[in-house]
Amino acid sequence: MPNERKYRVAIVGATGAVGQKIMGLLEDKQFPVEELVLLSSARSAGTKVLFGTTEVTVQEATPESFIGIDIAFFSAGGSVSAQLAKEAIDHGAVVIDNTSAFRMDENVPLIVPEVNAQDAENHQGVIANPNCSTIQMVVALKPILNTFGLTRVNVSTYQAVSGAGLQAIEELEEQTAAYLDGKDMVAEVLPVGGDKRHFPIAYNALPQIDVFEDNGYTAEEMKMINETKKILHMPDLAVAATCVRLPIVTSHSESVYIEIEEEGVSVEDMKNVLQDAPGIIVKDDPANQVYPTPLDATDEEAVFVGRIRKDLTNDKGFHLWIVSDNLMKGAALNTVQIAQSLIENEIV
Amino acid sequence: MPNERKYRVAIVGATGAVGQKIMGLLEDKQFPVEELVLLSSARSAGTKVLFGTTEVTVQEATPESFIGIDIAFFSAGGSVSAQLAKEAIDHGAVVIDNTSAFRMDENVPLIVPEVNAQDAENHQGVIANPNCSTIQMVVALKPILNTFGLTRVNVSTYQAVSGAGLQAIEELEEQTAAYLDGKDMVAEVLPVGGDKRHFPIAYNALPQIDVFEDNGYTAEEMKMINETKKILHMPDLAVAATCVRLPIVTSHSESVYIEIEEEGVSVEDMKNVLQDAPGIIVKDDPANQVYPTPLDATDEEAVFVGRIRKDLTNDKGFHLWIVSDNLMKGAALNTVQIAQSLIENEIV
Repeated sequence: MPNERKYRVAIVGATGAVGQKIMGLLEDKQFPVEELVLLSSARSAGTKVLFGTTEVTVQEATPESFIGIDIAFFSAGGSVSAQLAKEAIDHGAVVIDNTSAFRMDENVPLIVPEVNAQDAENHQGVIANPNCSTIQMVVALKPILNTFGLTRVNVSTYQAVSGAGLQAIEELEEQTAAYLDGKDMVAEVLPVGGDKRHFPIAYNALPQIDVFEDNGYTAEEMKMINETKKILHMPDLAVAATCVRLPIVTSHSESVYIEIEEEGVSVEDMKNVLQDAPGIIVKDDPANQVYPTPLDATDEEAVFVGRIRKDLTNDKGFHLWIVSDNLMKGAALNTVQIAQSLIENEIV
Repeated sequence: MPNERKYRVAIVGATGAVGQKIMGLLEDKQFPVEELVLLSSARSAGTKVLFGTTEVTVQEATPESFIGIDIAFFSAGGSVSAQLAKEAIDHGAVVIDNTSAFRMDENVPLIVPEVNAQDAENHQGVIANPNCSTIQMVVALKPILNTFGLTRVNVSTYQAVSGAGLQAIEELEEQTAAYLDGKDMVAEVLPVGGDKRHFPIAYNALPQIDVFEDNGYTAEEMKMINETKKILHMPDLAVAATCVRLPIVTSHSESVYIEIEEEGVSVEDMKNVLQDAPGIIVKDDPANQVYPTPLDATDEEAVFVGRIRKDLTNDKGFHLWIVSDNLMKGAALNTVQIAQSLIENEIV
């Protein structure tokens, strides 16, 4: 029996890049919306947006905005989530939070539906959407773990500027235009909006995403390490990460080295497992130069995996190239899929 | 006693990006040039170039071009080297070859002067300059090997388009301009000039450098693996590589994971060893956002190392971010340094 209930849905951060994508996906996927409430900061309030054929006026988010809301998508930065998520829960909403505010809270499930949808059953009001670079990696790691076991993950990322927001996209385009005109590039946003120093991203690579922690790793690297362990329920998994921002607008790529438990696994075995897994499209035919790229992955829903190779010296080692749209599966799509899985599993 | 001998020098591929850099370095470093012969294909012959205050006319390279030459720099592609290097040697020249034609020939020393200058002593006429991405990595690996031992290397590269020649630089700039104008990007050069399919590099990442081999690795990846083992005299070293082309004009970056033999080595120990090693500048101060980037490394001679971190689960594991100008230390500079070391060691 299909569940025919409809839901009152709020999007906090509705005018942002991810908020807009969430709204588009609710429409495209015919999400059972009874009422859509779009919320933003005071600055963006008053903006009018079309949802299907309905004009919706964006309102300033306040505690009272959540009265009667069933599902609240938060995508307006960690401080907004920290401030307003509790109000939404107190008014009876389930919060699906796209910031890092609650991800490592042991009472908050961190969900990628293909991987650990069942963890949402124990939620206490907030369900967290993982970091973009984590999501696409664990979608590929989970079927490998299930089939061959998994003992080590070492990832180097190739991340798009859209992960740092619309300002970062504009900065890349302005710097590129300046470079082509032989002018100086102005850097005011990247690598991290709130950090002390800024460097050009055009024609460059910045080995810093988010701020540095005391151990010399960036917060982005620690997110990938800690979130991967949490989502896979493997607190002792050996995970390492180096995160790099590049002059790419959308879609993150990852060079991932893994070690599995099982011996004698072939590249064909590995491809078959990935091909059969939910959410993954294998693009891997070296003889015909077929492999995933960020331009091809943009606006697509899947996690693309290619360059699947066995390590030349370690029978249990494999190399993968994993690409996905960081605004889609890395953010808005996974958020909406969490809500869909809550409905399917009758959690909301 | 300084050696005051001067040398008759030829550059084959004199009008190319690397050939021009070699000429500039011979001048900047006051290389003891008695006569400079600039050679090229018939197409570029006749071009006039200033070497210091002397105008030199580029000539078509023929077997007779090498009569009387002491040192011949070859940088005009593997097929030209295969065709003309023997002629140069037969006329008494030492060939320093910047192509992949002879690198893995067991009778040809493959030299990075900071690492294995002494290997040149047994040359039989040709000395090979390694692949750009290999050179900068082994400069950093050698002092680590000497001090702590080395058992494993796993590199993911972030490579600039200039490694694919001037046409690739033009293609990146044209595609970028088209993108900013909202036009379609035309791809005719990258990932590999002679391969079947071409993809845009602007705002993209291409996990293919050079052609694919039958084992699913690219020729570039196999160069890094095999050349590293040869230069370090470690045929059984576990080396893995994933090579990726990016929209960066100059300077390659590398995310390198290593495992060493010694236990209990600290990040400070590792930094000290790298800081004291020839050819390396350590740029590593996370608290002040100090790390190497390709824009900063361009036109510099050093190999820059930063983001030096101990692996969080393996006491013997370390992560490094290695950046260097692929046209300088990765090509022209190393080539000229080989010639300088031949003179110092009285091999030529």
